[in-house]
Amino acid sequence: MKHGQVMFEAFESSVLKGNAAGDPHVRRVPVYLPPSYDGSPARRYPVVYVLSGFAGRGRMLLNDSPWSAALDDRMDLAVAHGCEEMILVMPDCFTRFGGSQYVNSTATGRYQDHLVNELVPWIDGRYRTLASREHRGVAGKSSGGYGALILGLRHAATFGAIACHSGDIGFDYCYRPDVPKFCAAIQRGGGLAAWMSKFDAGVHKKSDDLHVLNILAMAACYSPNPATPPFGIDLPIDVESGRWRDEVWHRWLEHDPLNLVERHYDALRSLRLVYLDCGTRDEWSLHLGARLLVEKLQQFRVEHEYLEYDDGHMNVSYRYDVSLPKMSRALAAGD
Amino acid sequence: MKHGQVMFEAFESSVLKGNAAGDPHVRRVPVYLPPSYDGSPARRYPVVYVLSGFAGRGRMLLNDSPWSAALDDRMDLAVAHGCEEMILVMPDCFTRFGGSQYVNSTATGRYQDHLVNELVPWIDGRYRTLASREHRGVAGKSSGGYGALILGLRHAATFGAIACHSGDIGFDYCYRPDVPKFCAAIQRGGGLAAWMSKFDAGVHKKSDDLHVLNILAMAACYSPNPATPPFGIDLPIDVESGRWRDEVWHRWLEHDPLNLVERHYDALRSLRLVYLDCGTRDEWSLHLGARLLVEKLQQFRVEHEYLEYDDGHMNVSYRYDVSLPKMSRALAAGD
Amino acid sequence: MKHGQVMFEAFESSVLKGNAAGDPHVRRVPVYLPPSYDGSPARRYPVVYVLSGFAGRGRMLLNDSPWSAALDDRMDLAVAHGCEEMILVMPDCFTRFGGSQYVNSTATGRYQDHLVNELVPWIDGRYRTLASREHRGVAGKSSGGYGALILGLRHAATFGAIACHSGDIGFDYCYRPDVPKFCAAIQRGGGLAAWMSKFDAGVHKKSDDLHVLNILAMAACYSPNPATPPFGIDLPIDVESGRWRDEVWHRWLEHDPLNLVERHYDALRSLRLVYLDCGTRDEWSLHLGARLLVEKLQQFRVEHEYLEYDDGHMNVSYRYDVSLPKMSRALAAGD
Amino acid sequence: MKHGQVMFEAFESSVLKGNAAGDPHVRRVPVYLPPSYDGSPARRYPVVYVLSGFAGRGRMLLNDSPWSAALDDRMDLAVAHGCEEMILVMPDCFTRFGGSQYVNSTATGRYQDHLVNELVPWIDGRYRTLASREHRGVAGKSSGGYGALILGLRHAATFGAIACHSGDIGFDYCYRPDVPKFCAAIQRGGGLAAWMSKFDAGVHKKSDDLHVLNILAMAACYSPNPATPPFGIDLPIDVESGRWRDEVWHRWLEHDPLNLVERHYDALRSLRLVYLDCGTRDEWSLHLGARLLVEKLQQFRVEHEYLEYDDGHMNVSYRYDVSLPKMSRALAAGD
Repeated sequence: MKHGQVMFEAFESSVLKGNAAGDPHVRRVPVYLPPSYDGSPARRYPVVYVLSGFAGRGRMLLNDSPWSAALDDRMDLAVAHGCEEMILVMPDCFTRFGGSQYVNSTATGRYQDHLVNELVPWIDGRYRTLASREHRGVAGKSSGGYGALILGLRHAATFGAIACHSGDIGFDYCYRPDVPKFCAAIQRGGGLAAWMSKFDAGVHKKSDDLHVLNILAMAACYSPNPATPPFGIDLPIDVESGRWRDEVWHRWLEHDPLNLVERHYDALRSLRLVYLDCGTRDEWSLHLGARLLVEKLQQFRVEHEYLEYDDGHMNVSYRYDVSLPKMSRALAAGD
Repeated sequence: MKHGQVMFEAFESSVLKGNAAGDPHVRRVPVYLPPSYDGSPARRYPVVYVLSGFAGRGRMLLNDSPWSAALDDRMDLAVAHGCEEMILVMPDCFTRFGGSQYVNSTATGRYQDHLVNELVPWIDGRYRTLASREHRGVAGKSSGGYGALILGLRHAATFGAIACHSGDIGFDYCYRPDVPKFCAAIQRGGGLAAWMSKFDAGVHKKSDDLHVLNILAMAACYSPNPATPPFGIDLPIDVESGRWRDEVWHRWLEHDPLNLVERHYDALRSLRLVYLDCGTRDEWSLHLGARLLVEKLQQFRVEHEYLEYDDGHMNVSYRYDVSLPKMSRALAAGD
Repeated sequence: MKHGQVMFEAFESSVLKGNAAGDPHVRRVPVYLPPSYDGSPARRYPVVYVLSGFAGRGRMLLNDSPWSAALDDRMDLAVAHGCEEMILVMPDCFTRFGGSQYVNSTATGRYQDHLVNELVPWIDGRYRTLASREHRGVAGKSSGGYGALILGLRHAATFGAIACHSGDIGFDYCYRPDVPKFCAAIQRGGGLAAWMSKFDAGVHKKSDDLHVLNILAMAACYSPNPATPPFGIDLPIDVESGRWRDEVWHRWLEHDPLNLVERHYDALRSLRLVYLDCGTRDEWSLHLGARLLVEKLQQFRVEHEYLEYDDGHMNVSYRYDVSLPKMSRALAAGD
Repeated sequence: MKHGQVMFEAFESSVLKGNAAGDPHVRRVPVYLPPSYDGSPARRYPVVYVLSGFAGRGRMLLNDSPWSAALDDRMDLAVAHGCEEMILVMPDCFTRFGGSQYVNSTATGRYQDHLVNELVPWIDGRYRTLASREHRGVAGKSSGGYGALILGLRHAATFGAIACHSGDIGFDYCYRPDVPKFCAAIQRGGGLAAWMSKFDAGVHKKSDDLHVLNILAMAACYSPNPATPPFGIDLPIDVESGRWRDEVWHRWLEHDPLNLVERHYDALRSLRLVYLDCGTRDEWSLHLGARLLVEKLQQFRVEHEYLEYDDGHMNVSYRYDVSLPKMSRALAAGD
């Protein structure tokens, strides 16, 4: 089997410089170049940006396991099975809160701008990509799937195909149930700042704490507010009284893909591929959201493919074996 | 130490006869008689109705463990430490859905009527109780705590003191988060009827399934609808489409203690004891609800006691060691 | 359905008085009397002693659950289905270490003597039993199953039938694997005495701690040594160095039913019923031990019945529905 | 911070060609080259072989997480803090059973020979190493820690320093407890071949199954037997009868580091660094083994360092931050 190679780029972002969360503005961006790249110096390739999930960054897509291949190995195998070669770019949009949802936020940084305005042109300048939306896609899982959706909705001029694996859809079902426990944890932890300090100091990050962090991260992305100490984040629950804050929650819902289709269906219709999937045992009930989104897509006549798996939310990178060839066909050079 | 005795009454209910859920109308009701009962044939005693939680029935309050005493042993010990003697009645309001919340419902039965109109007079007739509200209390944990609250709110003419341990308060936080998973489980199970058949057939009831059953039970209690097959229950989520049903959810919220204080504060003010507690690690975030209720009680000037424990929701019957003496003082014969 | 009644006897033991572990010598012994008992004053009944498992005592056999009936309800139901009536006695042989294994030990007490020499004659004197081995059986689960086996082996003159559910058999497989973790826990806990104090003080007993306590209890039963502080117990591992102590382990193995058959096969052959069962997913691998025991029984031509269930170790009291009728037939008055 | 680079070598092994387990003989071997490597073409570096644990292979040492750095990042950081630069080699000795323990076995392959006779000279030929034992070390965690120990014991002429993190030591405590569950799982799975087929087919590998596989792998390494179908492996338990096989277990014990010190203390004494550590909550009780080994090392006057952490077995790669600088000092060029 022929192997591609992975370049580890250190990208210095102007957009992220001085971001509110204090995260680094130089990011490591692995770039997978397909097997023929070096030997075909005149050839240009479609490119897919693959977005990692919550608590992830690009390099983690290359994490290896004997029983679940890393993304480069999956792409090599797809190519060996006849898939058209593509370049894969693995951005790092991690934040101190665990992620950026690939949106712009005053609390984290302008990660969407970073991707669309900085990284895409830089990659197109540095590698032999087919540098147009017809040949550029975006894919991801979980928060990365959300990112793919949101980029397809808002930046269809940049990305011509999307693949969303178990993406964050239906915020009432996937996030809201964790908000009371978030509130209780922050209270027990002595408030946001104290909780965060303790989290940062912990050698091992506990699963329960990652659930708490997740809600904080979503608030940082969906309801930032520079005037709110300590992190410039409004929360959908008053962590002192425990009272629900509907006005904040509505700001979250404006980011819910379920509420974006009717405003962006033209963009979605313009895409060469809208692929979604989910597991029917998703621990965050994301398949309920996915199905409601699919209803919307049907209602607005957006062509799409939707697959369900008898599986949960974790360890589902085998689904790239399905989506990458689809992406490749949608973005192929010949079209 | 002197021991009381437990009588196992078989109570034949007229009210529950032919109930919609097909549950038995003859119920076993353990009655704890205090140590002096037999030897003091002229003496009358205060009485406390102790309500079990979800998936429980009266007899389970007598379940023994070497490290967590049964209710009769706790009462014996309290008496040995100087607590005034009381009669304890342990009703059985279990249903095929796991519980009745001690309310009337077309989907389960008129359990509140059963308690107030049938069981109380029958106990007063059969045992030497002090047969007036001043000497009659109601206590319970979890769903039993909810029952105590609701009986105090709606039947203050019958019960003069309440103790609510980790009661179901704040439905947006304690129930709503489980609704999406409920929906997903019912879908995977092939619909309500099929899911229920499979549940009934299982030798071991799994924790996940009890979470699902809990939501079904709450719907049976809070949003029954005789016209809805197969169980006469409306659900706050459309289990086919996964769409949220706000109109049903509002019916639930009408049963939330948070929304009942302003209508019933007179009743609450008339009580000799309003005792509540909760754990600050409650897995259903019930302490958030409890605190919001306490705010309401303060706002409406209802005297109360509220305690918090550094503990979760399960295995907290040690709190009866705190509440039973308080009840006893509030209901004592001398007053 | 006709119901039997449960008498709660307070039995004052001479044998247990001043026992080394400091446990009470007055024990509560529930006695189930079958439905016809009161109305048939001349009738005598077979009797089965039902032994509870580790961390249990007799009364816990009466613990109720809506989905798993208490022992008295199971017996009522069996009688309703045609099973001959029997008296059931539920001894309390609990110790501060969690159990006695129903053997005599200088570290706990002479629980075997207590059962055989004290409790049996007392029950025969107080209730209308058929007071001979032909009509007296012993049954139990887990440590109670071990107790049944050991009493059948050593006291076949007293007990004429045994039923052993998931009994402790094959110590190399069921106990030995937990010894290293026991050692590590005691070390972390600061030694035996400190660990025990902390355990005693804990409101909630954790599952991990019960595993540790279990090994301590078994050592108290199988390798007591009055000369060893602080509890008069020798351990199969040196908790300071972590070194294995083969000589102590061999003392345990002398109590392993696997090693007792060849010495006691005459006793076993004399029994009217030797019933054993186990789950094939037993978390302590007790089915491996059970099968090895069955091999021995075959080798020594001991008639027996052995059933396997596709189940684990916990919550298997449904198996009394199988064993009680078998016991009843074996012990019936007519024979 | 200056970064090193990672080369992904594809090494074609003659030794592993045609191995009995059918595993590939071409292996991917990541090689970390320190920051100065490219710019200092005359400089030679010490080299450390880092061995992955059970179910791991070299590349997994590069797995990234935002809260636990990959090995290359750890080494970069160590260098930035003043650690002498080193080359790190990450062999792939994975097998279909999950690992090779870095020993020769007829059931898996001659992995020790592969490392010592093939990989070391090849690396020395291809990279600018300091190609002598004084400057060559071996480190690893869990099974990799075992590998480091065993290579230090048996191949001190090749490796001059070892670091063993939570290594497999004390087989009676770390492996033996899992053998009964292994047996039960194989029985339920229908025998070794059927169990293995089902395991291989599973998309997700369950934790319980990995425990089973671990015992099979250890048997493949410690008690291979070409005559035993289906895998050429003798087991320490007869999986049909459940009977323990002492003669096989003794073959395992011959591989236990506890039993090797007295034969190899000369080799151990010759090492420039013998570093061990373990967590005091190790789930396999490996700290008990480590302490017993330390006793032996003291007895045989082998200089060593031993550290304990208040931690378990998993996610402890932060300990490389301790061991790599120690290795570096021990292997430094100047000596």
